[in-house]
Amino acid sequence: MSNQQLTHIDETGAARMVDVGEKPHTERVALAESFIRMQPATLALILSGGHKKGDVLAVARVAGIMAAKKTWDLIPMCHPLLLTKVAVTLTPDEQNHGIHILAECRLSGQTGVEMEALTAASVAALTLYDMCKAVDRGMVIEYTRLLEKHGGKTGSWVR
Amino acid sequence: MSNQQLTHIDETGAARMVDVGEKPHTERVALAESFIRMQPATLALILSGGHKKGDVLAVARVAGIMAAKKTWDLIPMCHPLLLTKVAVTLTPDEQNHGIHILAECRLSGQTGVEMEALTAASVAALTLYDMCKAVDRGMVIEYTRLLEKHGGKTGSWVR
Amino acid sequence: MSNQQLTHIDETGAARMVDVGEKPHTERVALAESFIRMQPATLALILSGGHKKGDVLAVARVAGIMAAKKTWDLIPMCHPLLLTKVAVTLTPDEQNHGIHILAECRLSGQTGVEMEALTAASVAALTLYDMCKAVDRGMVIEYTRLLEKHGGKTGSWVR
Amino acid sequence: MSNQQLTHIDETGAARMVDVGEKPHTERVALAESFIRMQPATLALILSGGHKKGDVLAVARVAGIMAAKKTWDLIPMCHPLLLTKVAVTLTPDEQNHGIHILAECRLSGQTGVEMEALTAASVAALTLYDMCKAVDRGMVIEYTRLLEKHGGKTGSWVR
Amino acid sequence: MSNQQLTHIDETGAARMVDVGEKPHTERVALAESFIRMQPATLALILSGGHKKGDVLAVARVAGIMAAKKTWDLIPMCHPLLLTKVAVTLTPDEQNHGIHILAECRLSGQTGVEMEALTAASVAALTLYDMCKAVDRGMVIEYTRLLEKHGGKTGSWVR
Amino acid sequence: MSNQQLTHIDETGAARMVDVGEKPHTERVALAESFIRMQPATLALILSGGHKKGDVLAVARVAGIMAAKKTWDLIPMCHPLLLTKVAVTLTPDEQNHGIHILAECRLSGQTGVEMEALTAASVAALTLYDMCKAVDRGMVIEYTRLLEKHGGKTGSWVR
Repeated sequence: MSNQQLTHIDETGAARMVDVGEKPHTERVALAESFIRMQPATLALILSGGHKKGDVLAVARVAGIMAAKKTWDLIPMCHPLLLTKVAVTLTPDEQNHGIHILAECRLSGQTGVEMEALTAASVAALTLYDMCKAVDRGMVIEYTRLLEKHGGKTGSWVR
Repeated sequence: MSNQQLTHIDETGAARMVDVGEKPHTERVALAESFIRMQPATLALILSGGHKKGDVLAVARVAGIMAAKKTWDLIPMCHPLLLTKVAVTLTPDEQNHGIHILAECRLSGQTGVEMEALTAASVAALTLYDMCKAVDRGMVIEYTRLLEKHGGKTGSWVR
Repeated sequence: MSNQQLTHIDETGAARMVDVGEKPHTERVALAESFIRMQPATLALILSGGHKKGDVLAVARVAGIMAAKKTWDLIPMCHPLLLTKVAVTLTPDEQNHGIHILAECRLSGQTGVEMEALTAASVAALTLYDMCKAVDRGMVIEYTRLLEKHGGKTGSWVR
Repeated sequence: MSNQQLTHIDETGAARMVDVGEKPHTERVALAESFIRMQPATLALILSGGHKKGDVLAVARVAGIMAAKKTWDLIPMCHPLLLTKVAVTLTPDEQNHGIHILAECRLSGQTGVEMEALTAASVAALTLYDMCKAVDRGMVIEYTRLLEKHGGKTGSWVR
Repeated sequence: MSNQQLTHIDETGAARMVDVGEKPHTERVALAESFIRMQPATLALILSGGHKKGDVLAVARVAGIMAAKKTWDLIPMCHPLLLTKVAVTLTPDEQNHGIHILAECRLSGQTGVEMEALTAASVAALTLYDMCKAVDRGMVIEYTRLLEKHGGKTGSWVR
Repeated sequence: MSNQQLTHIDETGAARMVDVGEKPHTERVALAESFIRMQPATLALILSGGHKKGDVLAVARVAGIMAAKKTWDLIPMCHPLLLTKVAVTLTPDEQNHGIHILAECRLSGQTGVEMEALTAASVAALTLYDMCKAVDRGMVIEYTRLLEKHGGKTGSWVR
């Protein structure tokens, strides 16, 4: 692999926001996931209240959506872009004692939206940690990873 | 466990930024860690260039530090606070094919800095993903978790 | 009315940033207004100084324009967009003891700019409150509302 | 009233962020309210779904809380400050066809939190507008105003 | 000079936000200046309109004040802090064909406010460039520098 | 020159974000430069450490790139836009005792990117000041200016 394969690094080793001006505008979509493991009692606490506890999941969902829009301001070499869709789905998993987070981002543009989906999933997970840390400081965000992406020169990628 | 144990949720189930006005000002410190696993060739690419590649790690370090300062704007119920120290240490782990991230945050104040340390570690990991994704889209952030925290009413917690 | 009419809520009741990727790019414009009522003496104070007091209105105008650009970061389900024009007009109304705010936003894109115009008007009004609150804490922002919008699938709407 | 009573304007008419360095640190609290009027059918739509619609109110609540923390970045002459509490309460009012918003902010510091409470109420109202505008573009934010504030040199003020 | 004198760089050469937790809280003040040179006709254009042109200077003043509050978000290793005063003074200099900018920042805290004053002066100068660039693209920001600072362990420094 | 030549000021003297909706989408590029002069010993300190000191330049580079993306939020009348490339090149100049900063911004759009390039250069220079101020408070940013711009109705401009 040559030096140039790290596209954000130029031939002198300096970071740059790579030029995407020549790339075509195509439909882009990315799906990312994260999982936060917790004590069974913590999960029960989130779920037991029924709609009264709805805000825990709602707050994490909103945080993930808003974070996707801030990705360009968090990840130094990310391009600003115009997301046309962001959805964050939170699924309690009682068997594995945790909450699964799925983030989907879409746009039509010159750059992919993998970072936006990964950022949405990460921040939703961090928000769940924040909402529950008073009762369970040992929660772990067990993985954050890209599931699939479509569009752009490199086409589709599926884990 | 009672409803009240989720401190960010009031008795009606609504989210709120909990009142910390009565809490004492104490020295707070938190350490969090994250690990991003990648292809051996990807890690070699980051490390092979010597100082020329230094920017990959430097960019991730800067991104993590800057993200710690934005935590209040990312995590909805987090309080604004005045961090007195943020350090992000990146350690390549050739045996496990990845980079280990350690984030430390400190302040003297009324709220803990666990979320700041976790956010710094997460965003540093996401930045590494962004810098290398052109060559290795399958990288996984394998865990993000609190290592220890000190200060405040609940005192010390060590994993 | 069906559940689906609240476009930012999906069929499970969860909030999402709705997909606008299929919408055509059209010219969009929105006008919104707000009115802040104050003591006659407060209004006189703003107006009496002639150009020396010009900064009160200038600061509110700048604040409204800058806020329009931040709408995507304030309103959780708003899409990021590329405003091509923002203008905020402040008109003292000595008869009704207040200042009328008119905000106009424009772009060519896939989403409307109603929220941007409403946000500009609201923040300009809040800024006037801030500039004058030391002499008149009882000021009231009496209304904030859309006046008209044009463009997009639903076409024109005029109050 | 003299020129100097507009504290954010200096003797030449120029805006400035006034020096609060000499002010004592005191407990501050402010309550602000806003009311958004809508079609009865719109309110019914928000309320009919039971917990499934909970996200409309939850998103507005989160938006208000997050906006309070951004007040220093929205209102040009506001000081940065460390809010210790933000709560936003949304109460559907079926008689008056709308939703009442109550925002409470607290801190111990050198400046009041009136602007933070007013900003929280305004942005929560704007978010409700955004969530429902597809079915009811004519909604009006009928008033936004301070209800009471306590602390600081001027002490308590109650509408 | 030893390696350690660059306080933001640790012994391994890595950047960090240095720990100021042990520093005493003292009164801090910093003054910075900048000068933007332009065509005589450009300066005349700004000044000729009397109060009607007041907005050029007012917008630059507001931009400088708001930028001071964002310094922590612009300069990676800067600490967040609570400015108690920001003032930006713009003085047209017809002899030297330009506008002189003086920025003053104050707080009581553990870190100095030099960067805040320099950032305020820089952004005010950039804003003047933006407001006038359509008629004079060759304007030059001729210098930006610290004039004096007081407070903290190193005490006073005057150019 | 007529009043209208200051495009961000309307016929009443009020600031506005000028309408660019009618402008064509063209390729835009801008180059700006800045120079920060320092003590010879300060420059030696930055350069002496070899790769270990690499972070000083890397942090300034990252700060400049990130600031370019925030230009719309710093300069009140700037339009939001979608930068396709940002590069910041730092060149130590031992003869003149300082570091030269060159910033390049590109996009295809309706507005030029001069302000983005100037902002990137300014913030990179400010960051160098911040990293070295503990050893050399007298550093001066000696000039910040546009070098060239291409694209748009006014075509090319070269200093």
